[in-house]
Amino acid sequence: MSFETVSIDRRKSTERIQRDIETLGGSDFTRSANAIERYAYTPEYRHTLDYFAGEFEALGFEVSEDPVGNFFARNRPTGESAFGLGSHCDSNRNGGKYDGTMGVVVALEVCRLSTELGLDLPLQAISFLEEEGSGFGQGLLGSRVIMGRVSDEDIRENFRSLDDGRSFFEHATDAGYEPERWRECGSGLDGLIGWLELHIEQGRVLQDTSTQIGVVTAIVGVCWSEILFEGRADHAGATPMGFRADAAIPAAETILELERRASATTVPTVGTVGQCGFDPDLVNVIPGQVRLSVDVRSVDEDSYHGVTTAITAFAATSAERHGVTATSRQTLDSPPAPLDEAVIRAMTQAAEACGVSYREMPSGGGHDTQVIASRVPSAMVFVPCVDGISHAPNEVADPADGAAAAEVMLNAARSLAG
Amino acid sequence: MSFETVSIDRRKSTERIQRDIETLGGSDFTRSANAIERYAYTPEYRHTLDYFAGEFEALGFEVSEDPVGNFFARNRPTGESAFGLGSHCDSNRNGGKYDGTMGVVVALEVCRLSTELGLDLPLQAISFLEEEGSGFGQGLLGSRVIMGRVSDEDIRENFRSLDDGRSFFEHATDAGYEPERWRECGSGLDGLIGWLELHIEQGRVLQDTSTQIGVVTAIVGVCWSEILFEGRADHAGATPMGFRADAAIPAAETILELERRASATTVPTVGTVGQCGFDPDLVNVIPGQVRLSVDVRSVDEDSYHGVTTAITAFAATSAERHGVTATSRQTLDSPPAPLDEAVIRAMTQAAEACGVSYREMPSGGGHDTQVIASRVPSAMVFVPCVDGISHAPNEVADPADGAAAAEVMLNAARSLAG
Repeated sequence: MSFETVSIDRRKSTERIQRDIETLGGSDFTRSANAIERYAYTPEYRHTLDYFAGEFEALGFEVSEDPVGNFFARNRPTGESAFGLGSHCDSNRNGGKYDGTMGVVVALEVCRLSTELGLDLPLQAISFLEEEGSGFGQGLLGSRVIMGRVSDEDIRENFRSLDDGRSFFEHATDAGYEPERWRECGSGLDGLIGWLELHIEQGRVLQDTSTQIGVVTAIVGVCWSEILFEGRADHAGATPMGFRADAAIPAAETILELERRASATTVPTVGTVGQCGFDPDLVNVIPGQVRLSVDVRSVDEDSYHGVTTAITAFAATSAERHGVTATSRQTLDSPPAPLDEAVIRAMTQAAEACGVSYREMPSGGGHDTQVIASRVPSAMVFVPCVDGISHAPNEVADPADGAAAAEVMLNAARSLAG
Repeated sequence: MSFETVSIDRRKSTERIQRDIETLGGSDFTRSANAIERYAYTPEYRHTLDYFAGEFEALGFEVSEDPVGNFFARNRPTGESAFGLGSHCDSNRNGGKYDGTMGVVVALEVCRLSTELGLDLPLQAISFLEEEGSGFGQGLLGSRVIMGRVSDEDIRENFRSLDDGRSFFEHATDAGYEPERWRECGSGLDGLIGWLELHIEQGRVLQDTSTQIGVVTAIVGVCWSEILFEGRADHAGATPMGFRADAAIPAAETILELERRASATTVPTVGTVGQCGFDPDLVNVIPGQVRLSVDVRSVDEDSYHGVTTAITAFAATSAERHGVTATSRQTLDSPPAPLDEAVIRAMTQAAEACGVSYREMPSGGGHDTQVIASRVPSAMVFVPCVDGISHAPNEVADPADGAAAAEVMLNAARSLAG
């Protein structure tokens, strides 16, 4: 397949992306003086949707919101096919300017370029509601509502505001939405022939390998578990080594074994002990209990399940060897989402044609794209972020990388939908 | 040396010890409804000293307190030589009935036996002030004042009540003492030709080896340090194994290496990581920082210093291997206190002669005896406590073991001072 590219003025796109990002970092758009903090049904979130609405309407796009507040902008009538672009514009409660928002901003920029260059591609931008879960403790909420992966009871009762405990239903109603019609949200994806979400990488691979964009081939599956080691909390001075049941010893062995196993898999897999709690946690007492969290991820289901199963068995054996018990409990098992080969190929071909360095890679974090990928042929684009920092006020990405990504996305969308 | 023993009615002694312990577990003697909580200059501590004063005076002993509140009872005029017995009767803030108090109770029982059996051994009982540090955060305080191991500034300014922040000096004055005369406290040990402190073991060795008493040959030296591992707090999903600087990995290796090294020493040595803190301590973030406490103890200075030095070096090397740094800081170095061979020998001979099973062992915990051992020929006696539990309301020891110990101590004191 030959690839005829459209070139853009990247400097101009960089400036527009930067202006959008900086505008949305202003005080009207965040509840915190020191971070980006915006979430569903707050004035700051409303201002953010209004900003995007104004920009899309200026391009002649038709703007709408679904019964819970997912945001859409289309340049074709409802029912006609279009190519989808977007992300989310809510933040975690101590967030930065780029996570999510940069994806909506770059979607807007691709729509601007399509209009400005006279391409008039059929496009639909989406900003999903509550990806971060800051409002109701429910991540990927907007896309899950669209895909019907919630229940009526969730909407009416179970999902409650982290601020005041009132239901999602009440808050949505107060904000002028019609949450009782949530089942109609699925139509928001009607006619979509493909989907691209740009997001900051949240890792350091692109930075450390000096790569401009990542073309995401799959979103990893994740298994979380918790292992509780129970020994005996004896006096550190009065208990000789041979008389101990020290819960820290099998816990330490398990931390090392997880690293060894994750590093040894043939399909890239990551394993992390991010939480560790000693009880009683005193300098002069042997820990009677140690609790570890285990996070294992891979695009390959067998691999992340395999590592999880192996580490659970290892913990039990190691504990027994040291006179300790280990009890494991799985707290999350989210399957991997392979992305669409045609959309991936369009992206890699466009990147090559545009002279943008790229790397095919999995996404280790969760995104709305994993929810909708079973319905719409999807891929994702990553741009580097400094030192992999995200979900923090000092999160930084380069608008110029956004402009390079916009050029690649424009050309990929053109090849798929033009 | 042949050993002529005096026999006692152990059942009678057991009953008296039990009565004393239970009395002092009553509501007049503790500030808590659920635990023993008593410390210097409180009414509950005063009641406890008054109880002992009454019991000793009933035996014809002369009772006194020094300028800060250490308690003495003698059956010889000041200046004449005597054999010392005792412990402390303050508790930690959530303590049990036996720690410390049982040592003073058994000292009282030995004095009773000496009187009752017509031995009239020259004896001096001591109950040291503030061994646990519950009042002013200063452990071994009474014995340190006696030995001059505090400064005038400590007494007047530095040592402050954990309850109200007022100085030790003010509290002691309000309680009727003369803390300005603290330097005179040293005379409390004048004339002592030996010293025996009974204490619950606070470990499980006697229980697990079915031994009635421990004859303590030395109190261990202790080195505490803190190791801070600093890596990078990256996203657990977005950071492949090869891109990580996971502070948990060298921390886990250090936990295992400490156990290996402490177990491999020729002189018994213990090494414990009792505290461990991950930062940020989130399931989906690689720990950027891990802080460990390290507690190493041995009666042999070279051994506990050697293990501490080796583990510090190991931590640095392990950290470097994983792209992490390790910074170690020593927070305590308390030298070992070897105890007196003649007193130890008198105890082991008496135990054999009395048919009481014993075990020579180090004390892994700190006691007032370690402070005064450089001035008075000293040893200690341990009695078993259930599952090694101490410093807790469910601490349990058997008064019958106290009675067996009292018989051994009586005979040892007789052989040394009779």
